[in-house]
Amino acid sequence: MSLQDLSSSMAPAVELELKHAVQLLDSVSTKEFHEMLTFHMGWSGEGAGPDAQGKRIRPLLLLLTTCACGSDWKPALPAAAAVELIHNFSLVHDDIQDSSDLRRGRPTVWKKWGVPQAINVGDALFITAQLEAMDINQSYSSDISLQACKLINEACLQLSRGQYLDISYEKRANLSLEDYWPMISGKTAALLSTSIQVGALLAGVDDARLEAWRCYGHYLGLAFQIQDDYLGIWGDSALTGKSTVSDLVAGKKSLPVLYGLAKNGKFARRWSTGSVQPDEVPELTGQLTEAGAQLYTQQIADQMTELSLQNLRLADPQGEGGDALFELTRMLLNRQA
Amino acid sequence: MSLQDLSSSMAPAVELELKHAVQLLDSVSTKEFHEMLTFHMGWSGEGAGPDAQGKRIRPLLLLLTTCACGSDWKPALPAAAAVELIHNFSLVHDDIQDSSDLRRGRPTVWKKWGVPQAINVGDALFITAQLEAMDINQSYSSDISLQACKLINEACLQLSRGQYLDISYEKRANLSLEDYWPMISGKTAALLSTSIQVGALLAGVDDARLEAWRCYGHYLGLAFQIQDDYLGIWGDSALTGKSTVSDLVAGKKSLPVLYGLAKNGKFARRWSTGSVQPDEVPELTGQLTEAGAQLYTQQIADQMTELSLQNLRLADPQGEGGDALFELTRMLLNRQA
Repeated sequence: MSLQDLSSSMAPAVELELKHAVQLLDSVSTKEFHEMLTFHMGWSGEGAGPDAQGKRIRPLLLLLTTCACGSDWKPALPAAAAVELIHNFSLVHDDIQDSSDLRRGRPTVWKKWGVPQAINVGDALFITAQLEAMDINQSYSSDISLQACKLINEACLQLSRGQYLDISYEKRANLSLEDYWPMISGKTAALLSTSIQVGALLAGVDDARLEAWRCYGHYLGLAFQIQDDYLGIWGDSALTGKSTVSDLVAGKKSLPVLYGLAKNGKFARRWSTGSVQPDEVPELTGQLTEAGAQLYTQQIADQMTELSLQNLRLADPQGEGGDALFELTRMLLNRQA
Repeated sequence: MSLQDLSSSMAPAVELELKHAVQLLDSVSTKEFHEMLTFHMGWSGEGAGPDAQGKRIRPLLLLLTTCACGSDWKPALPAAAAVELIHNFSLVHDDIQDSSDLRRGRPTVWKKWGVPQAINVGDALFITAQLEAMDINQSYSSDISLQACKLINEACLQLSRGQYLDISYEKRANLSLEDYWPMISGKTAALLSTSIQVGALLAGVDDARLEAWRCYGHYLGLAFQIQDDYLGIWGDSALTGKSTVSDLVAGKKSLPVLYGLAKNGKFARRWSTGSVQPDEVPELTGQLTEAGAQLYTQQIADQMTELSLQNLRLADPQGEGGDALFELTRMLLNRQA
C-alpha cells in the first residue's frame, strides 16, 4: 500500500473526527459561531472543499507514525484531530496578527466577522483541540493520554514563543541569522515534531526511539519551513498559488532575507530604508541571488532534509506506514509549491 | 480559623504557584514576553501589587471547597492556579474584544503592547493554564487529573460560547430577558462553578455531592454577575472604583438593561436610537428605576443567592473550610463594590 492508498483512507477519517470535535459548538443559540468555525475549516461557505481545508499534514504524519510503529492508526484519530485543531487555532490568530486578508484563497475569519469574533473562533478551536486530546483516553490509558496532552501543550508553548519572536522581529533592525532558528523552531517545527512524537508515543515505542522520532519531526519542520522561505522568493507563483513577491513585500524575516541582511550589501541597504514595493521585487530578488542567499538557503534546506531522513531511518519505521512516511517526507521536501 | 485566616495562608501559595506557571515563558529570548504576562498578572510594571492582581476568587473557592470536603488544600494548588490562569486568559482577550483601555486601573495588555502581542499573551496564559492543570497529576491519579482537565476545558467551551453571544448581542436589536441567561451562564457562572467542582472532585466526593457543589457554584456565579450588573448602574462609584455610568455608556446588555428594553417604554425608546452619552446617565438610570428594573434585578439576585446557599448546604461543607465558604459566599453576594 502506498502513501496514496494510506492517506486516502486516513484523510476522510480525520475529517470526520475534526467535524465531530467542532460539532461541540453547534447549538441553536450558537449556529453562527459554529458556521465561523466550519468556514475556517473549509467545510462551509463560498469556496468550501479540499483546497480550502489545507493539506492536513500534521494528522497525516501522526497517523502514519503510529502505523510505522506497528500499531493501528484508528484509535489515534482524536490525537490527530487535536494537532490539526491546534494548527488551525494558530492560523486564525496569526491572520489577525499579520492583518492577512486571505487564507487558502478565501477571506480570513477576522476579515469576514471582525477581530473580536475571530479571536474567539481561534480560542474555540484551541479549546476543542484540548477536549479532543483528552479523548485519546477513549482508547489509551490515562497515563499515556496525559503524557500526550502534555506534549501537545508544550508544543503550544513553543508556538507562542515563536509567535512572540515573529511579531517582535517586525520592529527590530539588528536581526542576525541566529535569530531565525528559535522563531521557526517554535512556529513550525514544534507542532510538526510533536505530532510525530505523539504518534509514536501512542504506539508504545521506548524512549530512545521516541527521541529519534522527535528529531525526525524537528528537522522535517525546519526543512519544510526553509523550503517555504525559498519558494516565497524563488518559487513559481503559478505553482505555489500565492504571489512570489509577497514574502519580500510583506517584509517577512525569512532565511534568505536574514542572510541578505547579514551580508550588509545592496540588499541590506535597500531593506533598511523601508517596505519593499511590488515593482522592486525582481531587482531585490536578483540582489539576494547575487549575494549567495539562494545557494545558502538551498544548502541549509538540504542539510535539514538530510538530518530529517537520518533520524527517520534511526526511528526505524516499519511496513507500509514506514514506506509512506519516506515517500511523504521526500514529497514535502522536494515540493515546488 | 476564619475566612481571613484561611485565605491569608492560601493567597500567597496561589500567587507562588501562578508565578511558577508563568515562569515557563521566562527565557533570555522571551524576557519581554514574560514581562507582558507578569504585568497583566499584577506582579510587575507601574501599579503592580494586590490591587492590580484582582481578587483571585476562583482559586480561593477551589481550595476552600477541597478543604470543606475534608481534604488538604495544598495538593490542589496546581488546579487552583489553572482556573485563575484561564480567567486571566479570558480577560486579556476580552479587553481586546471590548476595546477596553483599563483593567484594574492599569493599561490593558493590547493598549500597552498592541493587539497582535496581546492575542499571543492571552494564548500563552491559556497554554500555561493547561500545563498547570496537567500538574494536578503530581498529587492525584491520572484518572482524576484527566477528569479535572476535562471539566476545566468544558468550562472554557462555555466561556467561549458566552463570549460569542456577548459580542453578537452588540448588533442585535431584538434581545429579550431570556437571552441574558445563556450569556452569563457561559461568561461568568461556568468557570466559577467548575472551580468549585474541581475542588470537590480532588477531595474525592461522590457524584451526588459533586452535583450539589456544581449547582452551588452555578448559582453563585449567576448571583455574582447580577450583583455586578446592579452595581454597574446603581453602585456607588466611590466604592466600585469604576465609573457607575460605564455600563449604560458602554451599552452593556446587563440584566437591568434587558429588563428596561422588555418594558418597551421611555428607556427602550431612548436606547434604540443609539449610544448613551455620559450626561444622560442620571435620567436613564431614573427611567430604569421607575420601570422597576432596580427592584427586579435585586429580586433575581436574591433568588440566585438563595439557590446558591441552598445548594451549599446540600453539599454539606465541613469544618473551617465550610465556615469560610459560607462567609465568602455572603461577602461576595452582599458586596457594595
